[in-house]
Amino acid sequence: MIDMLGRADVIPLNRALELLNNTVFVVPEIEKAPIEDVCGRILAESITSNEDVPHYARSTMDGYALRAEDTFGVTETLPAYIKVTNEVIMGKSPLFHISHGEAARIPTGGMLPSGADAVIMFEHTQPFGGSDIEVLKSLAPGDNVIQKGQDVSKATALLCRGHKIRPQDMGALAAIGVSEVLVYRKPIVSIISTGDEIVPPGIPIEGAQIRDINSYNLSGLLLNNGATPIRKGIYGDDYDTIAAVATEAIKTSQMVIITGGSSVGTMDMTERIINGLGSPGVLFHGVAVKPGKPIIAGCVDGIPVFGLPGHPAAVTVSFEVFIKAAAVLKRLTGELLNETYHTNIKARLTSNIASQPARTDFIWVKILNKDGGLYAQPILGKSGLISTLVTADGVIEIPAERRGLEKDEEVLVRLF
Amino acid sequence: MIDMLGRADVIPLNRALELLNNTVFVVPEIEKAPIEDVCGRILAESITSNEDVPHYARSTMDGYALRAEDTFGVTETLPAYIKVTNEVIMGKSPLFHISHGEAARIPTGGMLPSGADAVIMFEHTQPFGGSDIEVLKSLAPGDNVIQKGQDVSKATALLCRGHKIRPQDMGALAAIGVSEVLVYRKPIVSIISTGDEIVPPGIPIEGAQIRDINSYNLSGLLLNNGATPIRKGIYGDDYDTIAAVATEAIKTSQMVIITGGSSVGTMDMTERIINGLGSPGVLFHGVAVKPGKPIIAGCVDGIPVFGLPGHPAAVTVSFEVFIKAAAVLKRLTGELLNETYHTNIKARLTSNIASQPARTDFIWVKILNKDGGLYAQPILGKSGLISTLVTADGVIEIPAERRGLEKDEEVLVRLF
Repeated sequence: MIDMLGRADVIPLNRALELLNNTVFVVPEIEKAPIEDVCGRILAESITSNEDVPHYARSTMDGYALRAEDTFGVTETLPAYIKVTNEVIMGKSPLFHISHGEAARIPTGGMLPSGADAVIMFEHTQPFGGSDIEVLKSLAPGDNVIQKGQDVSKATALLCRGHKIRPQDMGALAAIGVSEVLVYRKPIVSIISTGDEIVPPGIPIEGAQIRDINSYNLSGLLLNNGATPIRKGIYGDDYDTIAAVATEAIKTSQMVIITGGSSVGTMDMTERIINGLGSPGVLFHGVAVKPGKPIIAGCVDGIPVFGLPGHPAAVTVSFEVFIKAAAVLKRLTGELLNETYHTNIKARLTSNIASQPARTDFIWVKILNKDGGLYAQPILGKSGLISTLVTADGVIEIPAERRGLEKDEEVLVRLF
Repeated sequence: MIDMLGRADVIPLNRALELLNNTVFVVPEIEKAPIEDVCGRILAESITSNEDVPHYARSTMDGYALRAEDTFGVTETLPAYIKVTNEVIMGKSPLFHISHGEAARIPTGGMLPSGADAVIMFEHTQPFGGSDIEVLKSLAPGDNVIQKGQDVSKATALLCRGHKIRPQDMGALAAIGVSEVLVYRKPIVSIISTGDEIVPPGIPIEGAQIRDINSYNLSGLLLNNGATPIRKGIYGDDYDTIAAVATEAIKTSQMVIITGGSSVGTMDMTERIINGLGSPGVLFHGVAVKPGKPIIAGCVDGIPVFGLPGHPAAVTVSFEVFIKAAAVLKRLTGELLNETYHTNIKARLTSNIASQPARTDFIWVKILNKDGGLYAQPILGKSGLISTLVTADGVIEIPAERRGLEKDEEVLVRLF
């Protein structure tokens, strides 16, 4: 592959991902957190239950606890007659026993008294003078009962290390009596904005200046993917200045992203800065993808360092492909690599898209919901536009070996 | 519809959703926030650009800025000869003019000098002695240039009120110079756990006690949907105690959820408590859905108040159907009602599922990714199990008019 300046170091996407995959990054640190604070965090331990849930047999209905064998063969025309001898109180252990021909009133969730093995719902009974009831339906042992340990039995493996904790997982941890868990500390990612022309959003813009878009966009992407972004500020195109900020960032972060111009000169300076930080330094500079071709990826003492071109579109694609999908960030957050389908949906293309062979193209799409199906409408436009990103719902990939995609073809859309 | 105790007040799902839809809730408050802090927040203003982005014509390539007409008719065998008279410096306004037969070196992102209307890439030129170049390709005006305002032009409506802010939206706000925006304050939702038998996870469990699962599960669901949960604690089944906590919660929250037993007695007490808080009080008690039938929904002075049965499965379904999908929470967060497809995916059922007519059933499913397609595997089991929820990836709905769903049928799965 030859790049636009005739350099031979533009590599195909699969080779770039392979290089990232073979690089060893620092393992995430571990901290203890109360379960109410761990929604979306990554488990740093596998959780096995030390308790039976429930730890006693419970009724799932309001009704009468009894012996199922007392109801065998019973029908509405041939009812059984049972004496109600007691009542189960919610939250109290029943201190009585149910013998043949006896029953006890029991609320939903009530603890089954000894002797009883099933619960008949109120609607399948009728009062029959004094404390007796008519039972109108036969029961099997266990009917309307959750057995001890039926939900989670002691020693069951419930959640595994690397799992992203969902709301129901928080409930499950509470259920087995776990109030604190080990989670991976969120990786700190430093974002260094570079460029003599870059100014922050809050001040008036003059002459040939442009605003810092990427540090905000990247902050959001990092937050949404389990990292803590730190915006280190905007620095002019000066080797010593940027190198000093990057050196400090390497010491205080688990990943460093330098964004800058897309011109060959500024990208080359970023390459030299990353090589100057430590070893192994730059892994690759330039990949046959569009947008995002000038990307630089490196590693310094186990810390991944990226140099991203300045176009907002290139930044978003670089993040999705090289930092998120390539699992660089997941290795830093500790998340299992296979938990990914949530952010992908299938949709049909609304039009043909052309693509250059031997280059992996990423095309922004808007999702349309019509006739009960999902459609992906390509958003075409010059690269580098932030408005394109705002219109888009996701991105599709045209593999290097294809010359384009066809209308009505089913594509996988990575949602933002 | 008759419920299991012969009461006639169990209503169909669509009637319950209609009642919620016709209820007026308090409008969310508004606060100002810096754009770096608004990822996932809901915009409380529509954003129109006051600036052109870019605010000058820029090059999208490293090359030479020139007049396109100087290249008309040019081919590799019939090149044009152009004099390079100057250079554009990144971030600086060029103070020179490009006349016929002239060009200036320009980096990607550089400001187009006056007179020039296109950029030729380096690779389509050749040095030709002194400061001259050979231009090997014809250009149209605007080639390799982003025009002033081409990304976002002044007065363009960029983002609308009620939009959930994504990373690229943060970038777009920065691009148009906006450093702070109005967002809706996150609604505070109080969770009151009730039940004589309920104990927190951190202490040993005894006798007929069970652990508080639901306040943790609900906290996560609320966090994931843009609300701030406050767990008010666990209270015994005493009218005055719960009524006092609920009265305090109504004053400090935008929504109140009371979770408790599923027995008729405790649900009836919750109904009386909600009616005692103010008007209009209870909207409905009991809906023909499974799980979650005993649900209570009410409204007190514009604050929605829910009484949810104690089963974890019922709590999750009630949240998804009555609080999230019915847009009660979205009306409190200010989010637009139509931004929902992200959490739904289509999948094929791996087996038949039976269902009772005239009741809306919700079935947990696990998503399997095989042969390039997504499959939904029903997770069957007694209701109320937290382990079922942990295994599940989402939930499907069997409408009241269907008697079940068939193997290989395509279903819409709401992901957790």
